[in-house]
Amino acid sequence: MRTPVMPSTGELRPLGTDEVRITGGHWFERQAVNAAATIRHCLHWLEALDWIGNFDRVAAGEAPGRPFQRAGREFSDSEVYKLAEAMAWEIGRTGDPGLEEEFQKLTARIGAAQHEDGYLNTAFGNPGQEPRYSNLEWGHELYCAGHLIQAAVARLRNHGEDEFTRIARRVADHVCDTFGPGGIERICGHAEIEVALAEFSRATGEPRYLEQARLFIERHGQKTLKENGLYYQDDVTVRDAEVLRGHAVRALYLSSGAIDVAVETEDDELLEAVRAQWDRTVTRRTHLTGGMGSQYADEAFGRDFALNPDRAYAESCAGIAAVMTAWRLTLATGDSRYGDMIERISWNVLSGAVAPDGKSFFYANPLHQRTADPEPPADGALPHTRAGGNRAQWFDVSCCPTNLARTFAQFAAYVATTSEHGVQIHQFTPCTIDTNVDGARLALTVETNYPEEGRVTVRVDANEGGTREITFRVPAWAEDVRLIHPDGSVHEVDPAAVSVGRIGEFSPGDELHLEFSVAPRWTFPDPRVDAVRGCAAVERGPVVLCAESLDLPGGDLDELTVDTTVAPVERDGAVHVAARIHDRPEAWPYGPAAADDDGKAAEIPLLPFRLRATRGPAAMRVWLPVD
Amino acid sequence: MRTPVMPSTGELRPLGTDEVRITGGHWFERQAVNAAATIRHCLHWLEALDWIGNFDRVAAGEAPGRPFQRAGREFSDSEVYKLAEAMAWEIGRTGDPGLEEEFQKLTARIGAAQHEDGYLNTAFGNPGQEPRYSNLEWGHELYCAGHLIQAAVARLRNHGEDEFTRIARRVADHVCDTFGPGGIERICGHAEIEVALAEFSRATGEPRYLEQARLFIERHGQKTLKENGLYYQDDVTVRDAEVLRGHAVRALYLSSGAIDVAVETEDDELLEAVRAQWDRTVTRRTHLTGGMGSQYADEAFGRDFALNPDRAYAESCAGIAAVMTAWRLTLATGDSRYGDMIERISWNVLSGAVAPDGKSFFYANPLHQRTADPEPPADGALPHTRAGGNRAQWFDVSCCPTNLARTFAQFAAYVATTSEHGVQIHQFTPCTIDTNVDGARLALTVETNYPEEGRVTVRVDANEGGTREITFRVPAWAEDVRLIHPDGSVHEVDPAAVSVGRIGEFSPGDELHLEFSVAPRWTFPDPRVDAVRGCAAVERGPVVLCAESLDLPGGDLDELTVDTTVAPVERDGAVHVAARIHDRPEAWPYGPAAADDDGKAAEIPLLPFRLRATRGPAAMRVWLPVD
Repeated sequence: MRTPVMPSTGELRPLGTDEVRITGGHWFERQAVNAAATIRHCLHWLEALDWIGNFDRVAAGEAPGRPFQRAGREFSDSEVYKLAEAMAWEIGRTGDPGLEEEFQKLTARIGAAQHEDGYLNTAFGNPGQEPRYSNLEWGHELYCAGHLIQAAVARLRNHGEDEFTRIARRVADHVCDTFGPGGIERICGHAEIEVALAEFSRATGEPRYLEQARLFIERHGQKTLKENGLYYQDDVTVRDAEVLRGHAVRALYLSSGAIDVAVETEDDELLEAVRAQWDRTVTRRTHLTGGMGSQYADEAFGRDFALNPDRAYAESCAGIAAVMTAWRLTLATGDSRYGDMIERISWNVLSGAVAPDGKSFFYANPLHQRTADPEPPADGALPHTRAGGNRAQWFDVSCCPTNLARTFAQFAAYVATTSEHGVQIHQFTPCTIDTNVDGARLALTVETNYPEEGRVTVRVDANEGGTREITFRVPAWAEDVRLIHPDGSVHEVDPAAVSVGRIGEFSPGDELHLEFSVAPRWTFPDPRVDAVRGCAAVERGPVVLCAESLDLPGGDLDELTVDTTVAPVERDGAVHVAARIHDRPEAWPYGPAAADDDGKAAEIPLLPFRLRATRGPAAMRVWLPVD
Repeated sequence: MRTPVMPSTGELRPLGTDEVRITGGHWFERQAVNAAATIRHCLHWLEALDWIGNFDRVAAGEAPGRPFQRAGREFSDSEVYKLAEAMAWEIGRTGDPGLEEEFQKLTARIGAAQHEDGYLNTAFGNPGQEPRYSNLEWGHELYCAGHLIQAAVARLRNHGEDEFTRIARRVADHVCDTFGPGGIERICGHAEIEVALAEFSRATGEPRYLEQARLFIERHGQKTLKENGLYYQDDVTVRDAEVLRGHAVRALYLSSGAIDVAVETEDDELLEAVRAQWDRTVTRRTHLTGGMGSQYADEAFGRDFALNPDRAYAESCAGIAAVMTAWRLTLATGDSRYGDMIERISWNVLSGAVAPDGKSFFYANPLHQRTADPEPPADGALPHTRAGGNRAQWFDVSCCPTNLARTFAQFAAYVATTSEHGVQIHQFTPCTIDTNVDGARLALTVETNYPEEGRVTVRVDANEGGTREITFRVPAWAEDVRLIHPDGSVHEVDPAAVSVGRIGEFSPGDELHLEFSVAPRWTFPDPRVDAVRGCAAVERGPVVLCAESLDLPGGDLDELTVDTTVAPVERDGAVHVAARIHDRPEAWPYGPAAADDDGKAAEIPLLPFRLRATRGPAAMRVWLPVD
């Protein structure tokens, strides 16, 4: 079954990419661009910067006149592995023979660098380098191993055992040998090995990997790393933590691994701890876009309600990691509400992090860009700032491009689930679903022009069982929600419903429709979110909109206010809001008068946040000051 | 004349600490604590951490069995020099013989480390160290030299030539020899040498030092340093820059030096450039407290209107540097308005950066502390975070304590100036002024209980000349301003007046009174300051107030709103505001309803920002959300 997460217990069973096939719409296009452009773009850069070459050099060893010189940062191996994972998913999706050949070549080069005892890393433990595991805080050795193992999970599930998965097995065994009881009883400064080993245990049936994942989870918070415990979640145990904190990607990879361990070991206390941390993070430390890692410094979660839109980090990889966590919570708890966050992050963080052509990327995704930054050089010369206002072809720390590539390639795995009764649709995209429910085939076609339109149709193509339930997630923001049964009857849905479905003896040709409004709407922040007090944003369906300076008379976003008493309107394919453009004086900016100048009336078009910075450099803001 | 800045041209002549003596009130107390506690506290730490010992080790040199091991960061010499400067000012102020003895001992230890050719630095160019000037970007060698020279200026003006000033002279000559035309035509990554050499030229009469300062100023923006040009103001020339940017302390030291050079070389274009940069920085990049370095990252200025109170840096040293710049602009232009910023920074940033007992310090001075941070360990163990919610005894980068010590010791130098017509009072403190105007003695006593009361009295003690003008700065925020002449006549002052004075044939016993309201007032931000939109602050006279969680029912500052339709009231020695305490739900924090819950009415006491965190850990905010 082709899915990145395959829990053995839990409320819902994920449907794999062999069961769900995206057939049109936005995510179909994103997958096509990913296949046609992004994966090969990443391969190009990994070769050009010689990050793959590091494996060849380790394999060749040091010799007189040939000193060992390594390219890239200490974690660059992980980019190679994440690309391998993307390729494995893509090969499974399309069977692309060219990509399969590339995958096998890459496998050979990676494998040649593996040590006799399974250790595999190009930054430590080779001639002239620091010894293995001599810097667990920042060395990223287990992090890299984790990404190799996750790629192997993808390969096992899309292809079956091969040389790549055997390499990963030797790595996993080496990790267990080295970090098991009586070994190095510490953790890696960047979580990832936990979630990887837990899934590899599921994929291989080897309980030892799960046990090692459990040990790593339990060691977090035991302060086995030096200083900076908060940053890499070594300050408090996973069980005792109350909220996600520190480096956002680390925190969310760790959460994902902890859920996997909790689910496999039936550790409800651990599951509940992570769930509570997630819930509190969503209510206090998450941006409107779903962006996590609320602050620039340390790529980290900020304190509660510290959500500055201009200094947000909201890293693309943190979005991916948040989807990983939310998906695991969906499966474990059966609660559709986690799908709202997957949808929010996917449409606003992930989709926008890749340019329409698939060849440039945002690393950070702040909700406010104060100035129109110059575009990075066309030749993509490094380093390009990770927090700039424009997408870049590559970064010195280039975790996001390959991470986005693997996520888009596997995106169909997050669309739907089954239970013993039926199928649950979590993400709305044109697709076909062909699976078994309670041992009998159920085949569906989903048709929708979502999110342009708020109508999702499920047509039954085959139902070889009896009574089945077909369920939709109802987005929390959706209004005027109606379910239309195959007999044409219309059923109003309680606005508080988390999901809604129909139980029946479905026959081929039967259609079930979910309808709701996706009209653009004003959204206001909780009064405790200091940085956007007095502002409003416009959302349309799951899509967060933004204003760009390019569309503003005068071009100065600092001089814009909006009138939220007027509903946003759609015209000429764009959402427009009533606004005023001011002309404020240059003066000491604090004084007795709270009143503003009148400004000039204007109507301003907004665009989806994901499409920001696609027309050239621009200042941008999601949160618009209210007049 | 005992003043840190002695321009040879300009509109106003500064009065030295031998002419102005602070005799009571807040600044008298701060100077007393500085003398009794802070200076010796700094000396203790510099010995305990062996940062002074570095000089001994350089002097002793390396020998078998005695490898050279240096303590502290690469710029730690500068702390020793800033403390020497503080001591020199304090010796001049009080004649303390014990301190004079310490100063001489320190001089001997510093001098013993000086190389034959004048070079003096304990981090470079000694056995086992990197060569001199091999890392101009981050090495801080000229920065350290600059602080040594500034200390020598203090010594020359408070004492006269001695071994310390001769050491500095050799250093200055070495710098000119090395960095003059045909030498290393580059700059130091941290400005300071410019302002130091310009003043040393004034103090010694040596034109070569001024010329070298001019060369360094002109070289900024020529991109002679690697990367990061914005950070150390090597991105754009001083003449071409439009606003202060990059690292705040660097930017403001550079501005101070540029003004000095402009004034001495009668370069009006350069002066005007720096003045315009300052003005724009004040209107767009400065916090209500006068704090500069508006953002946490890089201790740097942010972009226009990027003024997040919780992630402000507003470093204490940047406050000192801003006072240096504002004072030079006061002297050069004669415009009293710059004194408003000196007052604002002094009362809110500088005074609060030192604990009442003089033994712990804030490095960063954000206007919003989200949580009650634990206090640093009582033994002062390093490292202590530079951005925490509590004062610390010392820091790994400990620039602020010694910088504050030298500034408090010389504070009387910023109080008043003379012109050919009379005396201008810029800062309101009880003091005596005894100077010459146009060659004839004028002696005054200033009496005031400012800022508790808005009344300043100048009494003439002696006037050996004829017609004289006595002028007061009128704070921009002051209302109901009146000047009362010696004859008792009351004169309303135009609210737009920058300064106000009386020309007359003053006789001993004549009194001139300035009166204005210091009643607490609501202050609102410019609508462009995103991070505090929808908030108000309370100021009382020059003092910015804040709320601490300790004073809040329930203790959760996130749940506070205030009612700005009710004027703040004074009761029991504290300012109180009408507030509501809310109890908001835990939910996704963005949605259709802008309305808040009602909350419970309460009255909340505020306290001066400078006194925050003096009663134990607390959450704190200056900007209070408006109901």
